[in-house]
Amino acid sequence: MILTSRKNPLVKQLRKLHHPQGRREQQLFLLEGTHLLEVACAVDYPLVTVLCTPDWLAGHGPLWENACRRCQRTELVSPEVMQAIATTVHPDGVVAAAQPRSQSAVLPTRLGLALEKVQDPGNLGTMMRTAVAAGAEGLWLSADSVDIHHPKLLRASAGEWFRLPVAVSPDLKDLVYRCQQQGIQVVATSPLADRIYWEIDLSCPTLILLGNEGAGLSPDLASMADRQVKIPLANGVESLNAAIAAALVLYEAQRQGPAEIRRCCSS
Amino acid sequence: MILTSRKNPLVKQLRKLHHPQGRREQQLFLLEGTHLLEVACAVDYPLVTVLCTPDWLAGHGPLWENACRRCQRTELVSPEVMQAIATTVHPDGVVAAAQPRSQSAVLPTRLGLALEKVQDPGNLGTMMRTAVAAGAEGLWLSADSVDIHHPKLLRASAGEWFRLPVAVSPDLKDLVYRCQQQGIQVVATSPLADRIYWEIDLSCPTLILLGNEGAGLSPDLASMADRQVKIPLANGVESLNAAIAAALVLYEAQRQGPAEIRRCCSS
Repeated sequence: MILTSRKNPLVKQLRKLHHPQGRREQQLFLLEGTHLLEVACAVDYPLVTVLCTPDWLAGHGPLWENACRRCQRTELVSPEVMQAIATTVHPDGVVAAAQPRSQSAVLPTRLGLALEKVQDPGNLGTMMRTAVAAGAEGLWLSADSVDIHHPKLLRASAGEWFRLPVAVSPDLKDLVYRCQQQGIQVVATSPLADRIYWEIDLSCPTLILLGNEGAGLSPDLASMADRQVKIPLANGVESLNAAIAAALVLYEAQRQGPAEIRRCCSS
Repeated sequence: MILTSRKNPLVKQLRKLHHPQGRREQQLFLLEGTHLLEVACAVDYPLVTVLCTPDWLAGHGPLWENACRRCQRTELVSPEVMQAIATTVHPDGVVAAAQPRSQSAVLPTRLGLALEKVQDPGNLGTMMRTAVAAGAEGLWLSADSVDIHHPKLLRASAGEWFRLPVAVSPDLKDLVYRCQQQGIQVVATSPLADRIYWEIDLSCPTLILLGNEGAGLSPDLASMADRQVKIPLANGVESLNAAIAAALVLYEAQRQGPAEIRRCCSS
């Protein structure tokens, strides 16, 4: 039995997950495409509904069975219905709905990333992917940032969304304070800083604090940081993409980092 | 006199510039939004047509006059017509059409970036922005990459598109050969390399060679490089976004670079 009507109640329900309000009301989010489903299964993320097209099923039997074991409901759908449910222009044939992640980030012991008011979901997804690759232990996000369950964010993370502990925080100042109590240095990026990011010691336990691309960090948060650093900009360039800025400081921490981190990253 | 009809021949002509074929046939491309127009005027880029809404004009008189001096035709258009011409969902009220850039990149004396088969326009625009900020002198692009005049690419470059010399090359192997003849070291990124990018000397004249995010560099091009380097990936991450990878190697070259480069970047 294949779902072929876009007016089916399940289709209508899942389409509401394209928007933050629908995700909040249903306490569900969308997970689109083969790769994200693979990672979700690999990390044992619980699923609620999984839907695929007959063509996708024909090529992905084992993944489908694996996903079916983890969810409450499965449906075969026509390509037209898949197109209606997915947020991408060319869905690859599978989507799932899952419950929001619980907040799991605890204070970093070596390297963490805290972001204030990040608005672009693609950028945030890229930052999550980079943070995991650079050995960061968690991400802290101000509550006025983009919804962490935005479909574009999950895609841009290339699956690392499922591997990075995240906490959404109404007050990053509290996080900064707790880090400092634990002896974790807090480093903020600012175009007005005197020091370049590679000129300070990032080999000790560090929380990197980054603001919104347009506005930067709010002054009260920036002023709490132990160190302020800038990224040098040649040729009169005004700023970098926020995901690029985050990557540069995260990888500089990894470059300076203790040997055990370097080993785990080089293997 | 305000253009209010979407069926006006000029509107139809400019809408064709949304697609590579239309840009090729007309030998024009679109430049959207206040910031790109400002940079185009600042670098004296010649314009052909400039269109804006009455609201935009009311707030940007001097920029409008500046742009008018550089173009052959100006038009006031209704917000509906602006919406039809622009490729963005919320155009800010001004677009222009201009002739394609001429190829201007010559061999780098200090730092250059060559990219093979890059497909994502947003990613390429981000790489151009980062390359200028890191002090790169030019970008070389394989001819099978995304169209350098893609509207999304210009936007993602945040205007640096106008400041970075670019050459589109049917054969990057020829570029690599010419660099090596001139004593410029060619460094390729490869996940299979033994050395990490910060372990090699990047302070001498260097061309950084990067491939497509999915497929990497083609083997024959990679094998020509003087050095292969990898970016360490923690926690089983498979790869980084291509713009992130480019940024890390470009900024490592800047970190290691000669003092005169560092000074120009720190000011």
